[in-house]
Amino acid sequence: MDTRKKIRPFTFKVDFQNGKISNPDTHIVRKLSSMKGQYSDEKSFNEMLDKKDCILYEVYEKLVPEIEGELLQGMSIVHPGKVGKEYFMTKGHFHSILDTAELYYCVKGHGYMVMENPEGDWSVEELIPNIVLYVPGRWAHRSININNTEDLVTIFTYPANAGHDYASIETKGFRKLVVDNNGTPEIIDNPGWK
Amino acid sequence: MDTRKKIRPFTFKVDFQNGKISNPDTHIVRKLSSMKGQYSDEKSFNEMLDKKDCILYEVYEKLVPEIEGELLQGMSIVHPGKVGKEYFMTKGHFHSILDTAELYYCVKGHGYMVMENPEGDWSVEELIPNIVLYVPGRWAHRSININNTEDLVTIFTYPANAGHDYASIETKGFRKLVVDNNGTPEIIDNPGWK
Repeated sequence: MDTRKKIRPFTFKVDFQNGKISNPDTHIVRKLSSMKGQYSDEKSFNEMLDKKDCILYEVYEKLVPEIEGELLQGMSIVHPGKVGKEYFMTKGHFHSILDTAELYYCVKGHGYMVMENPEGDWSVEELIPNIVLYVPGRWAHRSININNTEDLVTIFTYPANAGHDYASIETKGFRKLVVDNNGTPEIIDNPGWK
Repeated sequence: MDTRKKIRPFTFKVDFQNGKISNPDTHIVRKLSSMKGQYSDEKSFNEMLDKKDCILYEVYEKLVPEIEGELLQGMSIVHPGKVGKEYFMTKGHFHSILDTAELYYCVKGHGYMVMENPEGDWSVEELIPNIVLYVPGRWAHRSININNTEDLVTIFTYPANAGHDYASIETKGFRKLVVDNNGTPEIIDNPGWK
């Protein structure tokens, strides 16, 4: 979108039962193959991928000029499933402009947001319907669906000029993993964290 | 809040049935007396105020450092009622940093957002549950509850450094009014617009 273009007010409808927004400008589909190296159990990852390159999560966005002061919003749907003991999850990212926040409003499902900042702090917060999660500037974040059967659906918004830095997480991972321990999610140290 | 202070991720719960969020940092209550000069029917305004200085709307906020990149969020509750033919409504404001947007997610009720920008454009958008309204930078905005009995409840977010300019609207009003025309909301020119 032309960043100089002035836009008018607009609305869109959130269909949280079906995990959709009306008239999205973009629809991003992330498949298992795009998460290579992100799961600690590489054997399970490769076995799953050999069978099917399934969809882990989807993102719908409404585009606005990517300039300071505007806000980009959309919906994230993480499908249910596991790779070994780890749950289906998003790639996870810092913002390119590190000091920019992000807001998540959970409308369906049950999950966690795994977060950390370059200063060495980490945090894991639970996502259930009608919980708003605030991710301050400087905090990388990844959402995880811990429900066996239901999608995790959130509406998000962040400063439109923030940008995404996926590479840092792809290279070093998160300090903490959330794994399934006989039906209960457990937070453990990431053995592969660099 | 100390704008230099670094904050950690946090969550809060939205109780849209009762129009509350958990552990708000601020609770703003706007009474009829604070809206002097904002309603076109001054006679009705004064007659109502003589009887009771009733509450028109309430706002709950979660505070974050008021710096670029962070996002301020909260809940707005506009109660049902009318002053003459005009509905209960918020004061309406530009942002002090004019080029900053605001996002409203309607969770309950039925209303309108009246908007205009300094370039002379205006817009009125309907608010019903699960509608997200995007107010771009430069657009003043005022929410109006058109339901006779139910609160209009929205969750909002805007850049934490945006600030509020209420004075411009208090001085000149909005170009358009929404008035009750025998049970149907009607958009009319504001005779008092300067």
